[in-house]
Amino acid sequence: MQTLIQSVLTLQNGSLELVDVLLMGDRIHTVAPANSLPVAPCLIDGTDKLLLPGFVNGHTHSSQVWQRGLIPQLPLELWLANVFDSTPRQLDQFYWGAVSTAVDTLLSGGTCVMDHAYVLPHQEMETVDALVRGYKAVGIRAVIAPLIQDLPFASGFPRGCLLPQAASPQSAAELLAMMEAIVAEFHDPNQGIYIGVGPTGFHRCSDELLAGCGKLSDRLNLCYHTHLLETRAQQRLAQERYGISAVQHLENLGCLTPRTSVAHGVWIDDADIELLARTESTLVHNPVSNLRLGSGLAPVLKGLQAGLNVSFGCDGAASNDAQHLLEAIKLGTILHTVTDQDYEHWLTPEQAVQMAAMGGAKGVNLGDRTGTITPGMDADLVLYNLNHPSMLPRNNPLQLLILGRPTDVVEAAWVQGRQLVDQGRVLTVDTAALHHMLRHQPQAVHPAEPPHHPVEPHYREVMLNR
Amino acid sequence: MQTLIQSVLTLQNGSLELVDVLLMGDRIHTVAPANSLPVAPCLIDGTDKLLLPGFVNGHTHSSQVWQRGLIPQLPLELWLANVFDSTPRQLDQFYWGAVSTAVDTLLSGGTCVMDHAYVLPHQEMETVDALVRGYKAVGIRAVIAPLIQDLPFASGFPRGCLLPQAASPQSAAELLAMMEAIVAEFHDPNQGIYIGVGPTGFHRCSDELLAGCGKLSDRLNLCYHTHLLETRAQQRLAQERYGISAVQHLENLGCLTPRTSVAHGVWIDDADIELLARTESTLVHNPVSNLRLGSGLAPVLKGLQAGLNVSFGCDGAASNDAQHLLEAIKLGTILHTVTDQDYEHWLTPEQAVQMAAMGGAKGVNLGDRTGTITPGMDADLVLYNLNHPSMLPRNNPLQLLILGRPTDVVEAAWVQGRQLVDQGRVLTVDTAALHHMLRHQPQAVHPAEPPHHPVEPHYREVMLNR
Repeated sequence: MQTLIQSVLTLQNGSLELVDVLLMGDRIHTVAPANSLPVAPCLIDGTDKLLLPGFVNGHTHSSQVWQRGLIPQLPLELWLANVFDSTPRQLDQFYWGAVSTAVDTLLSGGTCVMDHAYVLPHQEMETVDALVRGYKAVGIRAVIAPLIQDLPFASGFPRGCLLPQAASPQSAAELLAMMEAIVAEFHDPNQGIYIGVGPTGFHRCSDELLAGCGKLSDRLNLCYHTHLLETRAQQRLAQERYGISAVQHLENLGCLTPRTSVAHGVWIDDADIELLARTESTLVHNPVSNLRLGSGLAPVLKGLQAGLNVSFGCDGAASNDAQHLLEAIKLGTILHTVTDQDYEHWLTPEQAVQMAAMGGAKGVNLGDRTGTITPGMDADLVLYNLNHPSMLPRNNPLQLLILGRPTDVVEAAWVQGRQLVDQGRVLTVDTAALHHMLRHQPQAVHPAEPPHHPVEPHYREVMLNR
Repeated sequence: MQTLIQSVLTLQNGSLELVDVLLMGDRIHTVAPANSLPVAPCLIDGTDKLLLPGFVNGHTHSSQVWQRGLIPQLPLELWLANVFDSTPRQLDQFYWGAVSTAVDTLLSGGTCVMDHAYVLPHQEMETVDALVRGYKAVGIRAVIAPLIQDLPFASGFPRGCLLPQAASPQSAAELLAMMEAIVAEFHDPNQGIYIGVGPTGFHRCSDELLAGCGKLSDRLNLCYHTHLLETRAQQRLAQERYGISAVQHLENLGCLTPRTSVAHGVWIDDADIELLARTESTLVHNPVSNLRLGSGLAPVLKGLQAGLNVSFGCDGAASNDAQHLLEAIKLGTILHTVTDQDYEHWLTPEQAVQMAAMGGAKGVNLGDRTGTITPGMDADLVLYNLNHPSMLPRNNPLQLLILGRPTDVVEAAWVQGRQLVDQGRVLTVDTAALHHMLRHQPQAVHPAEPPHHPVEPHYREVMLNR
């Protein structure tokens, strides 16, 4: 199968150029000057279009699609109590959650998603199976890193928290054995499905689990993905528990490698940045969620200046009521001006594209396969329609894509050479059925007592000194 | 003409309720429990819809539509040099700029726009005429406040700026006489067209002009609209020029009244907030622009806590490459969590609606006419389609509208009882012609030397101490 995208605007070495791009099988075969390549069996007219490498949604939780718009604005620790309370319990919700996440990602510029996935207790294999079926149905590239933890919820608060103890979590050994089984069953790079190891975060995980995940990542070449210093409470907890930075602690446990991506990092300091950069780890920046939960401003500009790889994520729909990758990228691009007066440090649209594409690919351990429009790379591509009113006037299409509010602009998308979107419609799944499922979800029943109330007095006392 | 919107979800006293809303002529006649009113000649089924008061875009510059996506990320003072250089010069661009601004506003939840309008030198009347024709063609409510100044560009920099002097600006007396003529010709409240007095900002205006505008506002009951302390440079300039806060200076000149709205106020301090609140002035918050230009974080939560009326604006398309009111509202709602750890102070979707509707109406001196769904108020209403995928699942429509990324959700809109949007399409103007104009704008010619280069050394030295 050969596809020629003829005379299309794209970003080459930092500037916009008109080129021909020939796809052959699952790869990009040739990139040549516009109108220089012979016509191929499948010909796509690139006039008034912009072709970019597919972006990576570097951090989300697919099952939260069902909790979109549900949970009020609260800081992470209190918000979490509400998330647990209203989390989906049916396997088909996980399937449709993956489908929805894949569709939203494709239609907002992404071709790959890192799903830091909640999995149903005692139904872990079945949950991952449902997610894999969902992602395969759509055809998007997906890394599924099941959320695992061996410490109770209350351990995530500084100065402990006197909560009625929920069911005892599984042990680190059990969880690691489970992860091996999940990898054996579902890790399938040829089909674009990858399993990652995803310890929830140091705040919910023993050293045995954190380090065991690191060894698994080393041995099986898996992405290591974890929440890291998302909130001030977590920063305080790390000092309380380890006496050193959580980043240094992870490094001591052997968890920081080029396969590692950490979500948020809002509260990392200069030494942490240095350490993450030196180990070639990736920081996944989730600006919408960080504001929605009041987590703070991640030190993205400092990170980039220190050579740290930074990518973008939406985070789950319970903390970012949209799953629109271009929205997260826009906010992540303009937000950091408030942290640095020198405008020469501000992110440009070109940098944002690089971070979202190659930065994202590196963050999911796929930097050798996707992230640029270069011969030999997998054909993970997105074609944008520049005639949509949201992309007018035509002053600078790239700037409008990143700094505007593009709407319905994804005309086509390919993953591993397979066309998944055409004329703005996902070809592989019945999106009407998805929307029917979402529309007819039973109305959420709000509990008489909001689930965060039991932990609230402790939180306010510890974090707000009331 | 009677229109009944039957059994529609709306926000009444802070919570969502199903109601019937009867419009008669240009007013809201009755709001009653769902399905309690007799059917009217024009019947609109409110099933799966949300009805809200129309929002106000409290600050924009319509002609910048042509500069969307054009100007790179720079701080205001340098960005301005680029704006001047590439500003439209043809009257029909002003007409279409107004049309585009009106359409974008209507399709993103707004029914009223404050256009702090650039007007062509020596063609001021003609420019305002073009804007008025544009807004009347669409039928949106518009306040047009021509940008006037009697000090040169260079006076906007702290410690002066050695620039070749451009043509001498008009005198305060000439400008005030011109404003009287513009009001006499174009101020037309019955048609929803208002003229405001819009001195650019203290940094470009003499005391004579600032105070003269205040007197005009008093005498003719006009909105007084001005840029205020948008940047750190302006704050420094105020200290340099007056030795007191620019807000206190405006108060001393008699410019702060309930008819006054100030754009940005990023650098106002606690005393300024107090003064603005006491004079019942309005702060128009432009979060996207403030981040895009690196201006900073306006003290919105502090302002609200002090009783200050705060509304939202998009600002012009050269500093916010989208003119999507819901986007500005979302960002303005979630951004301020980083300034206050106590989540009880964070903005809720219900507050955001109140700020965008009644807050906005007060800010343009129309709080007695629009901003709530109450009998007797003008029928300025927006009906949202809750079945669009971006509004699913149906957990909390208001939260998804404000915190999600609603796309193509404006189903219908009315201004002064006249329906301007139906089934997501603007009824009054040919939007295809608008998009044709925008699409076929000649490609911007980038000057050999970027226009901000001559002022850059001064800016860097003064503001960045290099």
